[in-house]
Amino acid sequence: MAVYTPVGAGDLAAFLDRYDIGHATSFKGIAEGVQNSNFFVETTHGRYILTLYEPRVDARDLPWFLALLAHLAAKGLPVPGPIADREGGFLQQLNGRPACLIAFAAGVSVTEPSAAECRAIGAAMGQLHTAVSDFTPVRANPLGPAGWHDLAARCGDWLGGIHTDLPGLVARGLAATAEWPVSLPAAAVHTDLFTDNVLLLDGRVTGLIDFYFACTEIRAYDYAVTHAAWCFSTDGATYHTDRAAALAAGYAETHGLGNAETAALPLLGTGAALRFLLTRCYDWINTPPDALVTRKDPLAFMRRLDWYLAATPAMILGQ
Amino acid sequence: MAVYTPVGAGDLAAFLDRYDIGHATSFKGIAEGVQNSNFFVETTHGRYILTLYEPRVDARDLPWFLALLAHLAAKGLPVPGPIADREGGFLQQLNGRPACLIAFAAGVSVTEPSAAECRAIGAAMGQLHTAVSDFTPVRANPLGPAGWHDLAARCGDWLGGIHTDLPGLVARGLAATAEWPVSLPAAAVHTDLFTDNVLLLDGRVTGLIDFYFACTEIRAYDYAVTHAAWCFSTDGATYHTDRAAALAAGYAETHGLGNAETAALPLLGTGAALRFLLTRCYDWINTPPDALVTRKDPLAFMRRLDWYLAATPAMILGQ
Repeated sequence: MAVYTPVGAGDLAAFLDRYDIGHATSFKGIAEGVQNSNFFVETTHGRYILTLYEPRVDARDLPWFLALLAHLAAKGLPVPGPIADREGGFLQQLNGRPACLIAFAAGVSVTEPSAAECRAIGAAMGQLHTAVSDFTPVRANPLGPAGWHDLAARCGDWLGGIHTDLPGLVARGLAATAEWPVSLPAAAVHTDLFTDNVLLLDGRVTGLIDFYFACTEIRAYDYAVTHAAWCFSTDGATYHTDRAAALAAGYAETHGLGNAETAALPLLGTGAALRFLLTRCYDWINTPPDALVTRKDPLAFMRRLDWYLAATPAMILGQ
Repeated sequence: MAVYTPVGAGDLAAFLDRYDIGHATSFKGIAEGVQNSNFFVETTHGRYILTLYEPRVDARDLPWFLALLAHLAAKGLPVPGPIADREGGFLQQLNGRPACLIAFAAGVSVTEPSAAECRAIGAAMGQLHTAVSDFTPVRANPLGPAGWHDLAARCGDWLGGIHTDLPGLVARGLAATAEWPVSLPAAAVHTDLFTDNVLLLDGRVTGLIDFYFACTEIRAYDYAVTHAAWCFSTDGATYHTDRAAALAAGYAETHGLGNAETAALPLLGTGAALRFLLTRCYDWINTPPDALVTRKDPLAFMRRLDWYLAATPAMILGQ
């Protein structure tokens, strides 16, 4: 939520000289992305987002992310693609950080989505899942089930301090996901399609952004994450069946779930809720309350985890 | 350097409904302004900056600031003006904060200005000083000489911890400015025209921004602040005579200094350096080193203060 590495006008001009996109006419740091420094750049040719990757991001993963973005943009998806420099490369160095220029996407993120917006994001996710079928490079999921036990252990006794029900619920979540449906189809998926990573304009998806949690993962797990993100009230207290039905309908238009995927939805939803619950708990414990970063409420995902542990495929599909 | 008060899509849509400027097509928090939350808003009609005033700003001052911006924009200066709602008002409430929509200005802030850029900002400052001659509302300067003794006292023994020479130098600065040239002409001036508050495009000033330190103050003090900001290397170690001469030439084109003002420049420069030295020391002492806000180096203004204490008017004018 801040710019960690400042970029001066001289730095920017020298950086843009490596591209064939004119010179800067506007330049502002934007408060987006918790892991990177991002800037809005307008040049005489167009608009871009300049991203400087901070040390929290493993630089070895950057070629994979940028190849995925380029792959999706080339297929015409609403994914802002990386801009190639004069030598055809995407990655630069700027002020000691790996840096990249990405197309600017119009649109606004919704806060409480409507059913129509859920249908639109379902259809866009289906397009994404179709488009990655021939994207073969692999990136393991650092926040996948293999890491959840360790993450829970690192939260330790603090969990009970956040909420007395948390230790028991996390234990139930870990037990339920011990048998993970690894035989389901995997692909390069987003795994973080929350509303703030989707731009919409007049009900149309204009941008799927922030792919820095993307990885090779069970494809229907991406569906489960998106379901968890879009079909509950933000605080997790209210489940919106109409949104869930719309998400399923939109996804069916452009991709659709297989029978084994549908059957595994409660398990995948449990895993999705557990993953965000654990990372939010970890961040909650490790972020000082007075930091300028907004801590996201873990309880919103405690409520979702509780819901998925008792859910059926039909409930998740909004039937 | 962050967004303190989040604004959701629904909040934004309801806010924009009060204006006749269409609906949002893009919306991003920007990492600008240490006292307010700022957002880039593009609508079907144009581009704007949405500012939410955080509690650090005294809401009673807002009508004065907005009246000044409107006054300057109406006179054709490169000052982005506030946008009137359907009822002709500038100030709204949004998410519990006073809020205002301001025109978006193109341009990029320079880091190390050239002499030509100093001439351009000198001319723009002169236009500003001409344009405020009929702006009569008064706002006292909360960071004027009356407050410097108190500010130094609040820094106390910490000053010596920042640099061993600081306590003595601050005492000399306070003594030198005890006789403040209060009889010089006063006006509503910016008093913070640092490079990051000036947007330039192809050598032209396209935006004077961030007027939230503006106040009724000795007009030539504004010249002294701008001189301190633009005519030294950022670290204060190098004085650029060519920039100073260009600043003076630009200012002379559009306004110019009277004889009494010229004679007072060393004193005004001493005051300007002392003001920024003291506020930077205060912020340095009161900002944790690991905060996401960048602490500005007080020593850059310690060096300037030392320079002004030995300066002549001719040196300040780059002669």
